[in-house]
Amino acid sequence: MKVVVIGGVAGGASTAARIRRLDENAEVIMFERGPHVSFSNCSLPFHLSGIVPTTDKLIMMDPQQFKSKYNLEARVSQEVIAINKERQTVTVRFVETDEVYEESYDKLMLSPGAKPILPAVQGIEQRHVFTVRNVVDIERLQRYTQFSAVENIAIIGGGFIGVEVAENLHAANKKISIIQRAPQIMKPYDDDMAQIMHKEIMDANIDLYVNADVAKIATDHIVLGDGQIVKADAVVVAIGVEPETKLAQEANLEIGKTGGIKVDGNYVTSDPAIYAVGDAIEVYHQVLHKPVRLALAGPAQKQARVAADHMYGITNRNRGVIGSSSIRIFNLNCATTGINEKTAKEAGFQADSVYVIAPDKVGLMPSSNALHLKLIFEVPTGKILGAQAIGKGNADKRIDVIAMLITMGGTIEDLKDVELSYSPLFGTAKDVVNMAALVATNISYGRFKQVHVSDVRRLYEENALFVDVREEKEFANGHIKNALNIPLSQLRERMAEIPKDRAVYVHCRSAQRSYNAVMALLNNGYTQVKNVSGSFLGICLYEYFHDQVDKRQPIVTQYNFK
Amino acid sequence: MKVVVIGGVAGGASTAARIRRLDENAEVIMFERGPHVSFSNCSLPFHLSGIVPTTDKLIMMDPQQFKSKYNLEARVSQEVIAINKERQTVTVRFVETDEVYEESYDKLMLSPGAKPILPAVQGIEQRHVFTVRNVVDIERLQRYTQFSAVENIAIIGGGFIGVEVAENLHAANKKISIIQRAPQIMKPYDDDMAQIMHKEIMDANIDLYVNADVAKIATDHIVLGDGQIVKADAVVVAIGVEPETKLAQEANLEIGKTGGIKVDGNYVTSDPAIYAVGDAIEVYHQVLHKPVRLALAGPAQKQARVAADHMYGITNRNRGVIGSSSIRIFNLNCATTGINEKTAKEAGFQADSVYVIAPDKVGLMPSSNALHLKLIFEVPTGKILGAQAIGKGNADKRIDVIAMLITMGGTIEDLKDVELSYSPLFGTAKDVVNMAALVATNISYGRFKQVHVSDVRRLYEENALFVDVREEKEFANGHIKNALNIPLSQLRERMAEIPKDRAVYVHCRSAQRSYNAVMALLNNGYTQVKNVSGSFLGICLYEYFHDQVDKRQPIVTQYNFK
Repeated sequence: MKVVVIGGVAGGASTAARIRRLDENAEVIMFERGPHVSFSNCSLPFHLSGIVPTTDKLIMMDPQQFKSKYNLEARVSQEVIAINKERQTVTVRFVETDEVYEESYDKLMLSPGAKPILPAVQGIEQRHVFTVRNVVDIERLQRYTQFSAVENIAIIGGGFIGVEVAENLHAANKKISIIQRAPQIMKPYDDDMAQIMHKEIMDANIDLYVNADVAKIATDHIVLGDGQIVKADAVVVAIGVEPETKLAQEANLEIGKTGGIKVDGNYVTSDPAIYAVGDAIEVYHQVLHKPVRLALAGPAQKQARVAADHMYGITNRNRGVIGSSSIRIFNLNCATTGINEKTAKEAGFQADSVYVIAPDKVGLMPSSNALHLKLIFEVPTGKILGAQAIGKGNADKRIDVIAMLITMGGTIEDLKDVELSYSPLFGTAKDVVNMAALVATNISYGRFKQVHVSDVRRLYEENALFVDVREEKEFANGHIKNALNIPLSQLRERMAEIPKDRAVYVHCRSAQRSYNAVMALLNNGYTQVKNVSGSFLGICLYEYFHDQVDKRQPIVTQYNFK
Repeated sequence: MKVVVIGGVAGGASTAARIRRLDENAEVIMFERGPHVSFSNCSLPFHLSGIVPTTDKLIMMDPQQFKSKYNLEARVSQEVIAINKERQTVTVRFVETDEVYEESYDKLMLSPGAKPILPAVQGIEQRHVFTVRNVVDIERLQRYTQFSAVENIAIIGGGFIGVEVAENLHAANKKISIIQRAPQIMKPYDDDMAQIMHKEIMDANIDLYVNADVAKIATDHIVLGDGQIVKADAVVVAIGVEPETKLAQEANLEIGKTGGIKVDGNYVTSDPAIYAVGDAIEVYHQVLHKPVRLALAGPAQKQARVAADHMYGITNRNRGVIGSSSIRIFNLNCATTGINEKTAKEAGFQADSVYVIAPDKVGLMPSSNALHLKLIFEVPTGKILGAQAIGKGNADKRIDVIAMLITMGGTIEDLKDVELSYSPLFGTAKDVVNMAALVATNISYGRFKQVHVSDVRRLYEENALFVDVREEKEFANGHIKNALNIPLSQLRERMAEIPKDRAVYVHCRSAQRSYNAVMALLNNGYTQVKNVSGSFLGICLYEYFHDQVDKRQPIVTQYNFK
């Protein structure tokens, strides 16, 4: 068997290595138009801060190592410029000399990846405007930012790469702005979780512009659509990527509706001798039940293995993707899996969510911190659709547990029951994932009703009655304006102060005490009582960024983030 | 409804709080013979190091708070001394006055917990011999160890409490010995994983005695069964706990074969008005398919909720327990779920295991460290039976993912496919759990064969042929004596040096390169090739402790733990 692989990195290199393990005699040739066939693309931004001190560290394997260790041939600086399906060959161009030759294949693996999208903005072509895709890119950017004259850097785009580049350049003592077209950064997260990130970025003294268009990129500044000027000696464009489908399209391989190369469950394209994996393809989403594009390294590696297996007649079950990811944003660890509530609703799911704030380990332990967990589930089945977690501690742990559960098609009942590995340094006896699932089952069973932090401003404006059941000294350190303070510890004596004939929204700091208060009120004949999911801490985090940036009138007397 | 609860802490307090949420009018009385009705028992050892600076921090809620917040009555320093089933009353004794009265109940909840086992050893009754069960105990111990004359402290027992007490007293600058009767500490872990812990404890300069009996406790030392003297100005006995079943037995409630109170799936005892939860009961083990005793806080809380629900006719599915736990041992985070390989084999499972060592995050990132993961699965179904993880990083995260999977009855196929939330700071694109599952599927499908680190010494003594495929400079820094070094990068040229007619055991540092070498050899007609699971790093860790302590002849030229 002779296999030609186009593109290295996660998809291509994994395919090649797997083939070698299956077949000692296979001839495998990898083509990469750039100089590096295998590098850690997810680690690229970390060179900007010096966490990855030199770019050679980013290179995982060179052609000599591929040869000696795996007997694989890697041809770098050679670009495949055409696929000749009928002859089963590819046309290859030497990047340096422009010379051209043909190479035959029995099987072809397409792993060309995705390329940064460049918006059609005036000034985009200038040499101080950068994108980040490979080692050469990051080297160029890093060198440029080392000039002392480069003080202000603007990042266009608030996704994974934008935020990671921002954080690493901030660590390199640059003054950073992030310009985001959408109302929030980090699209995989819902609006409520994104506000926590916005605050963190604002606290780090980064200028964050949301709902912001770029009108023009000048040599030392950017002009936004509303006329605002953002200083920028360098600009990094990271608004997203598009799949590299040129070769596939020219070879008349089928392209899916999402714009990615269409493949079957074994990653075979519309030509049975040609496979495709990685960021260039579309993949089936297990929760959404439809093809999506998902530019993540983990799925690419799994796809590569399955495709290589299939070349050798080995079968694998295809479960589709679920879209798990994580990112550090300054002091916050953020992770998500499955779909968010917005996507769920857009996709027509009958979905609900709960937002739980709980300690990530026993409060007595050093570095115990609040973990914010949002759990999205289908109504009435309780099937888990997705989750998002943010905190200084192990957000990724909780999301990975839920990722495993989504993979298994599990429900809030399953998550409520899971017995995690507790000891005080690692969690709490009832972990935040258990708690979120318990709240979700309570909501599902109709034991009590809730509203979300995103409802609170509207309710406030409608003069809704908020009952704050925190202790008086907590109330004094910030509360919703006009809220009625009846501490849980006085609730039973003072219940008469709460009217029975109108809607009542109960909250405390994190919705634990208010849950008990809501149950007490319901059991005392109150019928219009709802708990505020996320409670006062969630409300403060939700409101803060927009209050500051949009100069809104706060609905709280004072913020309290503790 | 009038509910009497015997015992506070996880089981009792959770029951009471749940009842209040279900029924505003229930009369709930909690009895606790000690002074504290609700405290963080899992955090007790951390008072010894000052991590929990004062014991009042350990107390989570006092009777006044129970009353004001939940309208629950907590009667402390009152001991229930008899259950009068027919009259549905309990007999209560005031601890201070010995006065006695009866209290009636509609439902009774037994949550008396478990008590430390005291061995029948000469000297056990002395006042410098301590156990750790509650706040009063830890206060006594902490006060005693503050005397400067108390320099040497011996801990009898190497389980959770023993190890945590040892670590916290070590942090308080005491010279610590741990005396363990069994060949290893931390029984939930297999022998191979326990050796990693042994080394860590030894490295911390703690004297660890395994296979050691206590013959006598003297005033300043302990005499072991073999005559060795262990200095001990204070002694902590932590060899295990036994369920508090006296009350239940006297009331003729059924006791299970394990010695715990027998309950049904709703935690109802043999008397329909009496429930029991927590460390005093036996619970059904989901993997072992039989009742076990499991003294853990997480399950106790879940049981309490289910039992309270059942009092009100609310049904809950009972999945049984799986036994997840975690512990920090100096610089190592350790976690486990399900059953270990030893238990699996004793229980008659046809089980196998894989031992994978992989980076816990991308190697380029700060604080990337090796994670040791052992995965135990059923043959041939691939059903996951248990897992153990040890490392400086997030061992608990990986175990929690597997705990979720065991809860769902999942297999190695499911674990191979799971898409965790990767970014370089949180993991690797192919996480260690994916890798372990991939190795397990390879073993299951018969793609290659393996031996375990625990086989290596025997094979070495049988003059087996070990082929070490690490690079020459790695080999020079320590290797199995007499091993043949053929780096993977030279394997194909030098393959003829490896005989085809005898068994060959291939390893590298962590079994990744050797896996590729094994596949190359198999594909070249070698039929007697096996991979050494855990490889050289695993071998060094497995051998080190016993080599040192038992003065064994090492099978390696030099240890290398990197």
